[in-house]
Amino acid sequence: MTNKPADIEEGLTFTPKFDASGLVTVVVTDAKSGDVLMVAHMNEEAIRKTVASGEAWYYSRSRKTLWRKGETSGHTQRVVELRVDCDQDALWLKVEQAGEGACHTGRRSCFYRAVTAGEGGAAGLSFVDADRLFDPAKVYR
Amino acid sequence: MTNKPADIEEGLTFTPKFDASGLVTVVVTDAKSGDVLMVAHMNEEAIRKTVASGEAWYYSRSRKTLWRKGETSGHTQRVVELRVDCDQDALWLKVEQAGEGACHTGRRSCFYRAVTAGEGGAAGLSFVDADRLFDPAKVYR
Repeated sequence: MTNKPADIEEGLTFTPKFDASGLVTVVVTDAKSGDVLMVAHMNEEAIRKTVASGEAWYYSRSRKTLWRKGETSGHTQRVVELRVDCDQDALWLKVEQAGEGACHTGRRSCFYRAVTAGEGGAAGLSFVDADRLFDPAKVYR
Repeated sequence: MTNKPADIEEGLTFTPKFDASGLVTVVVTDAKSGDVLMVAHMNEEAIRKTVASGEAWYYSRSRKTLWRKGETSGHTQRVVELRVDCDQDALWLKVEQAGEGACHTGRRSCFYRAVTAGEGGAAGLSFVDADRLFDPAKVYR
């Protein structure tokens, strides 16, 4: 006997749990390397467009607008697989990344710095896989 | 000439951007397989404890408390690498997962369902890598 509704965790109904702003967090990984490329957000429309088109659409919290990844840079993302987590408040999108990279700073991934433990417990950062593969100034204008 | 402060995006100072609740999103991947195991949150204390101990600590939004991953289940996570993204509002934690899995439903990963495009654009779910590796009822009591 359990009090857990059948539709929670185990169900096959897709009912994303949007936050107060109507968004879910999306982890985007490179289908080939497995690396995390970026963390972004989708609203209901972005999910619908992504599923329907097979290309990644996100919702920009800073610009408050829907955007198709790569619409300015050409660095689009083709959907390989979209998954949802147990409580349906996060998505995992595996993509085939077009162009040199996903990050607006010119790197392959937005995660190009590692946290390192410093003296006295203070944490610092060090560059990892931080090569710039494109010049943001030339790509975004 | 740029208006971008030198410390933003390019700096090596670790200054996580916490949200209104004092949290940052953490993507947790299996260092061996590269799979996304779960998405969780950390507050400042959870980050400090994780960096200092080499074991994953999170902040539970539902229980409103700090927790050491695996403190009940034994399924702890040893830190292999912790990274931060370009605007420092998301973390990527690569771990060595102890025990059978990271998900409280008994699976290796919380992402055991794929979103599938259905008729008329409606999306459904299908199980992927959804084998239960442990019995949650025996692990959490």
